Order: sequence, then structure tokens, then C-alpha cells
Amino acid sequence: MTTIKPLSDLTIAQQAEMLPVKQIAEKLGLQEDDLDLYGKYKAKLSFDVIDRMATREDGKLILVTAINPTPAGEGKSTVTVGLGQALNQLDKQAIVCLREPSLGPTMGLKGGAAGGGFSQVLPMEDINLHFTGDMHAITSAHNTISAILDNHLHQGNDLGIDVRKIVWKRVLDLNDRALRHVTIGLGGSAHGVPREDGFDITVASEIMAILCLADSLTDLEARIKRIVVAYDRDNEPITAEQIGAAGAATLLLKEAFKPNLVQTLEQTPALVHGGPFANIAHGCNSLIATKTALKLGEYVVTEAGFGADLGAEKFCHIKSRIGKLNPDAVVLVATVRALKMHGGVAKDQLHVENVGAVGNGLKLLAKHVETMGKLGLPTVVALNRFNSDTAEELAAVLDWCEANHIRVALSEVWSNGGQGGRALAEAVIDTIESNESAFTPLYALTDSIEQKILTIAREVYGAADVTFTATAKKQMAQIEANGWQHLPICMAKTPFSLSDDPTKLGYQHGFTVTVRELKPSVGAGFLVALTGNVLTMPGLPKQPAALNMGIDETGKAIGLF
Amino acid sequence: MTTIKPLSDLTIAQQAEMLPVKQIAEKLGLQEDDLDLYGKYKAKLSFDVIDRMATREDGKLILVTAINPTPAGEGKSTVTVGLGQALNQLDKQAIVCLREPSLGPTMGLKGGAAGGGFSQVLPMEDINLHFTGDMHAITSAHNTISAILDNHLHQGNDLGIDVRKIVWKRVLDLNDRALRHVTIGLGGSAHGVPREDGFDITVASEIMAILCLADSLTDLEARIKRIVVAYDRDNEPITAEQIGAAGAATLLLKEAFKPNLVQTLEQTPALVHGGPFANIAHGCNSLIATKTALKLGEYVVTEAGFGADLGAEKFCHIKSRIGKLNPDAVVLVATVRALKMHGGVAKDQLHVENVGAVGNGLKLLAKHVETMGKLGLPTVVALNRFNSDTAEELAAVLDWCEANHIRVALSEVWSNGGQGGRALAEAVIDTIESNESAFTPLYALTDSIEQKILTIAREVYGAADVTFTATAKKQMAQIEANGWQHLPICMAKTPFSLSDDPTKLGYQHGFTVTVRELKPSVGAGFLVALTGNVLTMPGLPKQPAALNMGIDETGKAIGLF
Repeated sequence: MTTIKPLSDLTIAQQAEMLPVKQIAEKLGLQEDDLDLYGKYKAKLSFDVIDRMATREDGKLILVTAINPTPAGEGKSTVTVGLGQALNQLDKQAIVCLREPSLGPTMGLKGGAAGGGFSQVLPMEDINLHFTGDMHAITSAHNTISAILDNHLHQGNDLGIDVRKIVWKRVLDLNDRALRHVTIGLGGSAHGVPREDGFDITVASEIMAILCLADSLTDLEARIKRIVVAYDRDNEPITAEQIGAAGAATLLLKEAFKPNLVQTLEQTPALVHGGPFANIAHGCNSLIATKTALKLGEYVVTEAGFGADLGAEKFCHIKSRIGKLNPDAVVLVATVRALKMHGGVAKDQLHVENVGAVGNGLKLLAKHVETMGKLGLPTVVALNRFNSDTAEELAAVLDWCEANHIRVALSEVWSNGGQGGRALAEAVIDTIESNESAFTPLYALTDSIEQKILTIAREVYGAADVTFTATAKKQMAQIEANGWQHLPICMAKTPFSLSDDPTKLGYQHGFTVTVRELKPSVGAGFLVALTGNVLTMPGLPKQPAALNMGIDETGKAIGLF
Repeated sequence: MTTIKPLSDLTIAQQAEMLPVKQIAEKLGLQEDDLDLYGKYKAKLSFDVIDRMATREDGKLILVTAINPTPAGEGKSTVTVGLGQALNQLDKQAIVCLREPSLGPTMGLKGGAAGGGFSQVLPMEDINLHFTGDMHAITSAHNTISAILDNHLHQGNDLGIDVRKIVWKRVLDLNDRALRHVTIGLGGSAHGVPREDGFDITVASEIMAILCLADSLTDLEARIKRIVVAYDRDNEPITAEQIGAAGAATLLLKEAFKPNLVQTLEQTPALVHGGPFANIAHGCNSLIATKTALKLGEYVVTEAGFGADLGAEKFCHIKSRIGKLNPDAVVLVATVRALKMHGGVAKDQLHVENVGAVGNGLKLLAKHVETMGKLGLPTVVALNRFNSDTAEELAAVLDWCEANHIRVALSEVWSNGGQGGRALAEAVIDTIESNESAFTPLYALTDSIEQKILTIAREVYGAADVTFTATAKKQMAQIEANGWQHLPICMAKTPFSLSDDPTKLGYQHGFTVTVRELKPSVGAGFLVALTGNVLTMPGLPKQPAALNMGIDETGKAIGLF
């Protein structure tokens, strides 16, 4: 058993020795002129680099996903970082591609995070606070569209917008429940048109999804133009282009659209860029970062939000399809804790050894391995070790995988960094070298909306059927009337269960999924199918992490864990 | 007459040749390690530099102010930049200190601006868009306090905050009138406590004023702790410290607090940092930037918002007092256009020659020169030339100044850059070398609130008396009861008139100023005296500048004028 190192993530991060980001860029064959530096340890890659590399051959793309998680998460980002570090130790040119963290959760429950333990990206404090300003640029661009929209109403509403049918809310990068439902435009006729509104957290903005799916600045602007902000009195969609807001929003995003280069604790290059919600959006880092990394590295390790039923499915059907990506392998993260939870153990008993419960949970793991197979993706299970795991519990998983001819490796990247991920890295390399990916989407874009959702529910979740509420059916008809039915589906479902019921843990089969609402994100380019309530503006807990934050006398951050 | 160059500010800015900011820093004796680069042409100065320079002797401090302006402004920032460039041409180590522009007005009426013509700071696009993220950090820090406050209410309101007496609004860096008056916390008990609220523009945030008046990170945190966010049911003040928000807010500001180094069109170093409102706040760039510039340069040229009755008065009584600054000279900007307007010409006739009206306006100029004399400040009038000015009009001003023994110089910095400011620079150098500044504040902090306001109104505005509304009297009593009466006064008055009536142009005397409200900004450290309605959230005009903005096919900004 590896030594337990009870250091906080922030302490490990602050003790780490970073290379100047210029040297990280040199490892990738880039010059200082290719970078816009943001301090010594962060940089944005210029569009010149991206253009210059266009004809290079792509590296191998490794997607890290997971089984349905516990609320605390299974360490998917940590495995992503650790695997990148391990590949680097094996003399492979590896690049890690992660999502940017959001300030809201940092101030709320999480403190900061960008990986954990000895598998983190750095500089941890900066990445968790303002980083290179991408979130703020998205907030500005989003709210500029809002201000122009409300100004249009105030100045006479030439487009005949129905104030009851405005679908473009405002955003802030905060956890602030009091802003979920608001009324604005109060105080008299000098102060706008009164109406209901609400604020989402910035990562839930369609602008974030767009930034993560656009493959050029031109494409970014085209997508912003297509955003539907409202409907008029005849129920016709009104776009960001029609209110004249697309140009200004694009201008505000022109720097944010450039991928951010940083490094891991072991000085492996990392592109940390974009971070859309994994429910009402697709939950992956930016396409432009992934595509750039594929030009610069032999192996690109990236991740997608939540478990494989949501993140990997959307990575395949939304991001990969829009970006013409071809994933070469999947790393499916499982933990003894999550397997025990899915095997029937209560959350407060997960630290107690229970080999039987681990065994009960394996059927869920088998289902996700099977799904990856249907998608044509060679798969390695990464059993991500936690300090509370016992040797017998770990063996139960490893033995079961071997018995079922599932490639598996133990990951000890949290406690041991890249060294703890070498077995996993070797398994991944071997899998890629011996198995050609046969990636195939499970549905065609030309399928009907209903058929697309049915395919995902049956093939990925194991459902028997899908029902649509009357509201969803009405919305489906409207989407078809507007000609948006060719877009891929973005499922918004609980991550905790294969089904749409968060209390149904473990392997589920033959259930019915209920689609309650369908919301078009025409700019991002997908149709959101909501199977339950999704909170797009989190709240702060009773004791927010923010209350413990501050700076010490030397100006260093405290309280970011 | 100099050639008219009808190029837009953006065109001039985009054609300019910039030095890498590292080389600008070298001119100031700084190393690359002293900088946090933000791209190639922007940098933040590390606190190490600031500490290291602490024992150096200060350079000379030149404050650029103006007579009461026309709505279009008299080119105060342009003169500030041009004078810095001219001093540099005369082989003086000069540094320009300006305020950061706000996104709201950029998207509204103004397009972008940071000086104009051939006296601008660069990179103009970046400075006008997100720059180094300071505005966004202030927005985040401010709204984090708001979110923690509303969470406190939601989680049980242990401090007994009276929801009707919350004085901490939210902010966004936008012109968005529909957010002036809102209700929040709607939608049921899971979504916060319903109450009235509103959004100000970020530059109106008390956090902005604090960032601009703090002299260290420790002082920044101490001031944030003292912010009064609400009153409890017994009318006792509740501070940001009491709700536990001060540490997180400080952490969010730790990079924003570092001064930003850029350059002018002629590669003169410029610190562009902070930009508080000039009505409900003090309207000057950050104290830390000014103090750092004084250590790095022989001459520091800076400006204060609005005319001398507001900007220069507050520069002397708030910023200089808190920062122990000693201004060495004042440059008082006047224009033929403004003098004509104050001499009785209608705004749409300002382009027509009218030497008599210019003469009528000079009494206002004389009043401001007299006020600077009362403050003990050697003064040079800068007659800032516009294309529509005629030789006779210009001569009327220059001759009058000479006849009255007022030092004066023609400024042609807009059309000619530093070359057009050399006469002004020579006059300023000569004035500083031949006149020791005898700077003395006009009131003592120990004076009563009433006495302080009376002194400003009489000595600076030329009023006979001040009356206080019943509301203001009640607020004064509360301020005294809370022990805040020792703070300096921040007057919020129309900039267009010496009096508190914006329609009374030209020289005014013997009027009565009415103080309608008194609002303590305990964190910033001043008491705001409101003499009229101040709009702290602007609206967008019928045709916002934003509608013409965008990027061209190479990714370059268009529509920022």
C-alpha cells in the first residue's frame, strides 16, 4: 500500500515546482511568439499556431469517463491528469485536456479543484479563481446580449418580441440562489420593461457550449447569430443576430476562444479550456483545445462530465460528431466506493469493507463496458484507488475484470502521481496499439427526435421505452416546425442512476425514461431533452467554502482546498 | 494650423507600432521578473517591485483637471497622455496614470476610449474590452459578498438583518437599465428570501473605490471588512466582515490590485489601473498605481474625473489625504468649445466662431484657477485645441491668460501627439521648477460633516450656503451615531455647473447647494453627499455602439471607435 500523504490539494499545489509556461510550450515545439502569456505559468495559444498545425497528423485521443458516480465524484479529472503524467513518464508526448473550473462551486462546497492530490493542474489558485478570464468573457458576452435584448424592448420592441417568451436569461459565475427567479425592469418607464427573468451560473450559458463546440472564430460568430433569445407574438424565433448582438458578443469572446496552456504537477502540458454544464449542455472541454492538442501531442487525454451514460455518450454524439473526432480509446474510471454504493451500501458506510457489495456493483460496470463496445471504442477500466479501499475489495474488481476479459489497471495517481498511473498508461498504449477504434455513433442525425432519444435510452441506459410529457410533445412539434430536428440530442438526466430516477442505484434495466421538456440550443447545435428538474443556478450551502478563504500576510491564497 | 487627420481612434491605434511591454518596463529599470505579462503588450507589476522601491524619492506629481465640461468632454485623458508623451520627448522619465475604461459605456455611446487621436494608450482594443480582468474581478468580489449576504438570509439570518435595509446592491459591467430595480428571491422557499434589489455598474461599486484607495493588500482587506452591507432590526450596521465575506472578496482581488503597465502611442509608459465613478466615488485611478509611478518616474501625469470642482477637489481631499500625496502642479484643461458653451452658446452652435462668447466663459476659468490657488497648487492652463476652433477664439483665451498672469499653453496633442504638447510640457516643467507646491486641504477631517460640506461649497463652488433635506439630516445623525463623521466628503454633484443645477452654465456665485442624501462608504473611507439624482446604472441608447461591433475575418476588432 502506498503511503498516505495527508496534504491538502492547495498545499501540494503551492509546494510544487512549476516550469515557466514558455518551457512547457517548448516541449510542444512552440515558440514564445505562439503564446499570449498570462503571468509566468499560464498562456493562451495564438490562432496562428492552430492554423499552422492544420496539416499535421492527429495524435491518439483517449477519453476518460466513469461509472455512475457518488456525489463526491470518482476522481475522473485526477485520473485524466495522472494518466497524462504517466504517459509522459513513458516518454510519450502526452497532453491533458480538461474543463475550466467555475467560481461558483469553488466558493460553495468544493473549494478549488483541478484534479487532486499528486495529479493536479497548476497554477491551482489561478485556475480556480479568474484563470485567463474566459468565464468572465462569457459572462460579459452573455449579459451583453441580455442588455441589448432589454434595450430593444425599452426602445420600442420593433421585432414584436413577446416578453412572456424570452428564453435568454442572464448569467453570473456564482452560486446565488436568490437570483434564480427575479423580476426586472421595475421602477417606472425610464427603467426598462417589467418582466420575469432569472440568472443561471455562467457555465450553464449557451455561450459556454458554443465556445466549446465552435471550430473557428467565424464558426463561433455564426453559432452566436443562431442563438434563439425569444419568440415573437406569432411564436416565431428571434435570434441574437436579429437584435444585433452577435458581433459584440463575438468581439468579447475573441481572446477567450484561444486555448489555455498550463502544466500538471509533473510538468506535463495541459490545455484547460471551456467547461459547459454536463446536463443541459455536453460537459466537455473545448473542441478547439482538443483539436489543437491532437496536433501537438502523441496522446491526448481528456474527460467528459458525469458518468459514461451522459459524458461519454455526449462526447461521442455531440462533440465528436461536430468536431469530426475519432476517439481511440476509453478509460472507464471505477472506484470501490462507487461500486459499493451501487451494490447497496449506504453513503455513510462506504468506508467500511464490504467485498460482497463491491461484487453487487460490478453489473453496472459491465453495462458501461458493454455500451463503450457498442460505440466501437476499445476500453480500459481504471480502478481508481482511495485510501479506504481494502486489498480484498480491490482484488474483487481486478479479478472480475480478468475473468470477463476486460482490460483493467489499478490507478494510484492521487497518492503517487504519474508513477501511480504507469500500469494504466501501459494498458492504454497496448490497447490502442492492438485495437483499431471502430467508433460509430449509435444514431443518425436524420433520425427523428423521438428515435434519437429512444436509441440513447435503450442502447446506453438500458431502458425499455421513453415517454414524452404533453409539454415535451408540444415542444417537439415546435422544434420540427422551426426545422431544428436534425440536431443531435443533449440528454439532461441524473448522473447518479442509469435511469432518470436518482434513487435507483446499481444496474437498472427495462425502465421507462420520461422526457419532460425539450429545449433547443440552436446556437450550440443540440436539442436538450430534460428528464427531471435541472438546477442551472446552484445555491451556497450553510457554511460556504468562501467563508474560510482569504490571503495570508504574503498575499498567498488560503482556504482553497 | 496642424493637418487634420480624420482617422478613427481605432485605426490610429491598430496602425501604431508598440514595443513589447518588457521593453517599456526596461525603460523604468524593471526586469521581466517584475512583471506578470498579459499577452505581449500588457503586464501587471508585482508587489515585489512596489516593496523594493519603497525608499526611493518620489517624482513630481502633475494632476490634469478641467473646467466644467461639455457632455462630450474636453479631452482631459488625451491631454494627460499627450503631456506624458511631450515630457518624454523632452528627455524626462514620464509616466502616465489613467483610469481603466468600463465596458458598459464602451458598448453604449462611447465605443472605446483611452485618450484619443495621437494621444492614446495601447493596446486600445484590449484596454477597452477585458484588459487584465480587473473589472471582472471587482464584479466577482462584489457579487460574492451579495451571494453570501443572501445566503445568510436564506440560512436563517442569525445576524437579524432587516431585509428592507440592505444597502449592498449587485453589480455588472454593463449598461443595463432593466436591472436598476429588481425583485429577487422569488419562486418559493428553496430560492432565497424575496426582497427588493438593484444592479449598479461595476465602476460604481464600493469595491472599485476601495481598490483605488488601498495602499496594500492588508489595507485592501481591512477596508473590505469595514464595508456596511446592511443594517439590522435595531439599525446597527452589519459589515462584510460580520457575514464572513471579506476574505473571499480580498482573495478574488489579489491580482486585480496590481497596477497595469501599458504604453502610449509614443511608447511612453502608462499605468492604467482602477476607475471609480466620479460622482458617488472619487473618480481617480488607483492610489497604488500613482504611488508606484512616483517611485519609477521623474514626472507622473494623472487625471481626475469631471471638472476641477469635483475631480481636483476629491483628488486633493480624498486620494491625496489617504495616500499622503503632494501634487506638484495642476494642468487645468479648457477648450474654446466649453468656454463658448459657458459663455451662452447653444450646444448645436459650438462649431460656429463666437469670440464674444469665449470671453464670457473666461470667468468660469478664472474661478477654477482661483480654487487651485486656494489649494496651494501651481497651475498651468492647457487650451486643448479642437479642429473647429478659430485663431481669434484661441487668441482670446491665450491673451486673457497672459493679461491675468495665468500660465497657459496651447495643447495640440490630439492631432500631433507629444509634439503638440511640448509647449505645455515646458510650461509645466518651468512652473514646477520655479514654484514650490504649497498644497493644503481646505477642510480638516475633524470638522463637522456640515462644516466640511459648507467649506467645499463655498470655497470650491462659490456657493453662499448649503441646505440639508430632512432625509440628509437624519442620515447625518446616523453617521455621527456610528462614529463615521471623521471621514472626508465625496460630493456627488452635476459636473456641468459649478452649482448643483446642471442647467446653470457659466460662472455662478452665491447660490445655495442642497444636499439631498448622505451615504457612508465606510470601506472606501468617505461620506457621499448627494445633491441630485445619480444614475449608478446607465442605460443603452436607441442605437448602442455594440450593434456595430464585431471582428473581421482575421479576428481584428471592428466598431470600437
